[in-house]
Amino acid sequence: MAVKSAVLFILNNENNRPILLQRVMGTPLLTWLSNGLSARGICRCLLICPEQFAEQAKACFPDSIALTCTADQNDISGFIASEQDEEMLVITKPVVDLGSKSALFAEDCADVGLAACTVSASALQTSDSVESCLAAHGTEAEGFAVVSEPDELPDWQPILKRLYLYELANNGVEIWDYDNCYVDPSVRVGAGTVLMPGTILRGKTVIGENCTIGPNTLLENAVIGNHTKINASQIFESSVADHTAVGPFAYIRPNCRIGSDVKIGDFVEVKNSVIDDGTKVSHLTYIGDSDVGKRINFGCGTVTVNYDRAKKFRTVIEDDAFIGCNTNLIAPVTVGEGAYIAAGSTITENVPANSLSIARVRQSNKENWSTNNKVKEKK
Amino acid sequence: MAVKSAVLFILNNENNRPILLQRVMGTPLLTWLSNGLSARGICRCLLICPEQFAEQAKACFPDSIALTCTADQNDISGFIASEQDEEMLVITKPVVDLGSKSALFAEDCADVGLAACTVSASALQTSDSVESCLAAHGTEAEGFAVVSEPDELPDWQPILKRLYLYELANNGVEIWDYDNCYVDPSVRVGAGTVLMPGTILRGKTVIGENCTIGPNTLLENAVIGNHTKINASQIFESSVADHTAVGPFAYIRPNCRIGSDVKIGDFVEVKNSVIDDGTKVSHLTYIGDSDVGKRINFGCGTVTVNYDRAKKFRTVIEDDAFIGCNTNLIAPVTVGEGAYIAAGSTITENVPANSLSIARVRQSNKENWSTNNKVKEKK
Amino acid sequence: MAVKSAVLFILNNENNRPILLQRVMGTPLLTWLSNGLSARGICRCLLICPEQFAEQAKACFPDSIALTCTADQNDISGFIASEQDEEMLVITKPVVDLGSKSALFAEDCADVGLAACTVSASALQTSDSVESCLAAHGTEAEGFAVVSEPDELPDWQPILKRLYLYELANNGVEIWDYDNCYVDPSVRVGAGTVLMPGTILRGKTVIGENCTIGPNTLLENAVIGNHTKINASQIFESSVADHTAVGPFAYIRPNCRIGSDVKIGDFVEVKNSVIDDGTKVSHLTYIGDSDVGKRINFGCGTVTVNYDRAKKFRTVIEDDAFIGCNTNLIAPVTVGEGAYIAAGSTITENVPANSLSIARVRQSNKENWSTNNKVKEKK
Repeated sequence: MAVKSAVLFILNNENNRPILLQRVMGTPLLTWLSNGLSARGICRCLLICPEQFAEQAKACFPDSIALTCTADQNDISGFIASEQDEEMLVITKPVVDLGSKSALFAEDCADVGLAACTVSASALQTSDSVESCLAAHGTEAEGFAVVSEPDELPDWQPILKRLYLYELANNGVEIWDYDNCYVDPSVRVGAGTVLMPGTILRGKTVIGENCTIGPNTLLENAVIGNHTKINASQIFESSVADHTAVGPFAYIRPNCRIGSDVKIGDFVEVKNSVIDDGTKVSHLTYIGDSDVGKRINFGCGTVTVNYDRAKKFRTVIEDDAFIGCNTNLIAPVTVGEGAYIAAGSTITENVPANSLSIARVRQSNKENWSTNNKVKEKK
Repeated sequence: MAVKSAVLFILNNENNRPILLQRVMGTPLLTWLSNGLSARGICRCLLICPEQFAEQAKACFPDSIALTCTADQNDISGFIASEQDEEMLVITKPVVDLGSKSALFAEDCADVGLAACTVSASALQTSDSVESCLAAHGTEAEGFAVVSEPDELPDWQPILKRLYLYELANNGVEIWDYDNCYVDPSVRVGAGTVLMPGTILRGKTVIGENCTIGPNTLLENAVIGNHTKINASQIFESSVADHTAVGPFAYIRPNCRIGSDVKIGDFVEVKNSVIDDGTKVSHLTYIGDSDVGKRINFGCGTVTVNYDRAKKFRTVIEDDAFIGCNTNLIAPVTVGEGAYIAAGSTITENVPANSLSIARVRQSNKENWSTNNKVKEKK
Repeated sequence: MAVKSAVLFILNNENNRPILLQRVMGTPLLTWLSNGLSARGICRCLLICPEQFAEQAKACFPDSIALTCTADQNDISGFIASEQDEEMLVITKPVVDLGSKSALFAEDCADVGLAACTVSASALQTSDSVESCLAAHGTEAEGFAVVSEPDELPDWQPILKRLYLYELANNGVEIWDYDNCYVDPSVRVGAGTVLMPGTILRGKTVIGENCTIGPNTLLENAVIGNHTKINASQIFESSVADHTAVGPFAYIRPNCRIGSDVKIGDFVEVKNSVIDDGTKVSHLTYIGDSDVGKRINFGCGTVTVNYDRAKKFRTVIEDDAFIGCNTNLIAPVTVGEGAYIAAGSTITENVPANSLSIARVRQSNKENWSTNNKVKEKK
């Protein structure tokens, strides 16, 4: 009978942070564990945790596990009673879940004893103490290893790293170097996607199929489509659709929605903006607080001026507009469909659809100036 | 007698890509193998390969090997006949070539049996089947290991990585960390050059002597001179000469030719351009489709405006010109020798040699404006 | 009795650089050794070194060791005489100091014999040769390993790397990946600081507590306060105070002093400048040769124009000023307290306190221009 329910104890650690809440590669050990439990089929969990750590602990669980977090004896009894005759997985100490890969890391596993057992909910219901119940009725669970001391955590780092990367590789992800790729267990990556060295994928990041990610790319809670390439860039709390190229050296800050067939090129920052399909933002540009349509071309050095020392305002750019290089768009402002803004202009008023907008001075050349002038190249 | 000729079989892999065409660190196993063969002195190769993989397979070979790729029995016989009494290296299964470093990885090598043998061309000519010929006359070749299954490839990743890095180190290249440096076997690196962590060198990249490359630098088909420093940058299909500094955070796109004593600084993109000796492009600049002379100084924020929504045009800048900060050069345009462009100008017409060119508005100050104005710093 | 004094021989290496001066991860083996000696409590050292290597060797020692570097027999005798009855640590060959971590790397250690011994200064004084003195009176020192050949250095790379990282971890530094973090032994890092992958800390860099450094960050002789975050950036010979955020993709060049609660954002270069508390330089900006006050907001694309082809000049910006986007500040120039510079302005004259300064052209819109014009999007 598949075990679908777990009881997990987080213990106080003599004024230190509990081991399960300490981090390995920036991610709490509990996150590594809870995602392992989910992969085993656990979908309900009773988390018994000191009050002051409850919020932190709850944040470590994936949505796939219905979580009851409590330290209250009645709530605990209620949870166990509701499990009736189910088998439960009971974890009483900090453990690492090696799951189906435990054979690969056999030398790192020892007896876990009562640290991770299965036992029937009914046995738990009728026992005075968990320990004695497990001792009497528990069956040691397979594929776990106990972490007794915080200073063992560094040794688990290379193992946890590879554990999840191997699973991704089994699912068709191509990983250049298992030693130089950091993927949280809560991340999903589609088949055919290539992860180059220095890739860090965190949180609830989801990546589609046939993407190329890296080198040196950090994604946190990012949602990436298919056939998209993210090169040497950082993306936070944003989505990027299909066949889009980001970077090298781009920075997408929270709350962006980037469409398909888009280019977000080098030295480009996008923040709190929507950029629709087919738009090219090739280089040295800042798009903030903006709603950007389809098939727009941004010249190099464009700035959406969203802040006037008092408030932030939005910029709207409609489909097929062309924004010249080194242009300022001073928000609030709307650039109409198909409009053309001449390079070097500072735009303070709306630009009607299909208009040319220009704000610049005629060039004047003073001949033989260099020859007569003292401003010469330093030797 | 040195073996100079090889026969290599690429086998169909049940609808999957043949193992030799699968990638390790982004590079087909066949590229690793063919470069190993070249290092052994192989200079002629008969590649027997299914039609649909021929192009891909041929692209894996270095120029040093004269390649005959065919699946035609007459062509095969012709090739072997032309070898007369030569000894040939015959590779019948996917193998890794550990070459002279095989002792270092002895534990990873097993008997290769008939997977890699030497045999005389004359024996091959008179045999009905390769297998029986090798069984009767072949001598197992040394330094190879068989890859039986695609899922063994990840295990070869750290070995192939180190194998070629050790060879570079023997030739005087200084490698910070053998675990964090990725060099295709087709790449050449000169003595005294330092490779810092996160360096990725791909394709036909050639690097001279006494360079510093990295950290976190990606070069693909780049040709770099001597005493040049490339820091945290990416360069594709371009050349950079001697004593030049690139980066940190520069991006050189295909078809650039960068001279000596040049600075391509931070947040600079160069594309499809020539930049001659002694020119400084220090920061936040885009140079595209341009012909740039010697000893030119580019101010920060310069943009060559090469695209007008319809066509791309070239910019020409002659020797000793000085380009002010935040300047637009709207192509097609020529800036003459020794000309000086004032900061903040948008240049639409040619600038004669030694002229000062300026296109900007006089500054006006409105006193006590902040004190009277509502635009105040948000608290 | 604690040994506080050492004698260290650097030997000529047959026309090659002496092994102790060869580099491991970019840092001479002698730097790794001298910092180990300092950690053992050595505070005086006699360095016996060929003249031509003296400067290079002296640069490898921490300030905590009073160094006498000489090859002169009288100076040597004087040093030893001044030690009177002290025990001395004598190192006669190139060694690695594994210190208290030697048990962890036991398999890498062999007998060091007379390569590292303790002996009394008085015994040394009365002996004809160091070798015979050590043979007769020396006690083998613990925790050292001999490096006999330069080609053993690559094998020491992963050990030296981990050796110092373990020490940092013992002091409360959180290290994501011990295999992908490069910290010179001369660097100090405070408790609670997190080092992400690809972090390189060099020279006399000092980092406070509770910082986050990395990924892919290079600091060289940088001094960082507490609670500061440096993301994917490079800093050289500069200081950054508390609660400041740098990057991603920022470049701080030598001689900068950055205050607290500052933001140095993406694609920002700062050079030879002071930036005071609370100032925000969010993106795509160059600040060079400038004195910048408190609580200033720099718009995107600001450039301090510090060079006119002949000389460099300074820019002064006083507290609470607001610098609009894509602005040029042509030095020498002063922007007064609370002044406001409109976006797109090129500022050539001083701006009085609380003034609005503006230098731009009124926008003109030509309606239906796109519809009538040939400049259309290329398909």
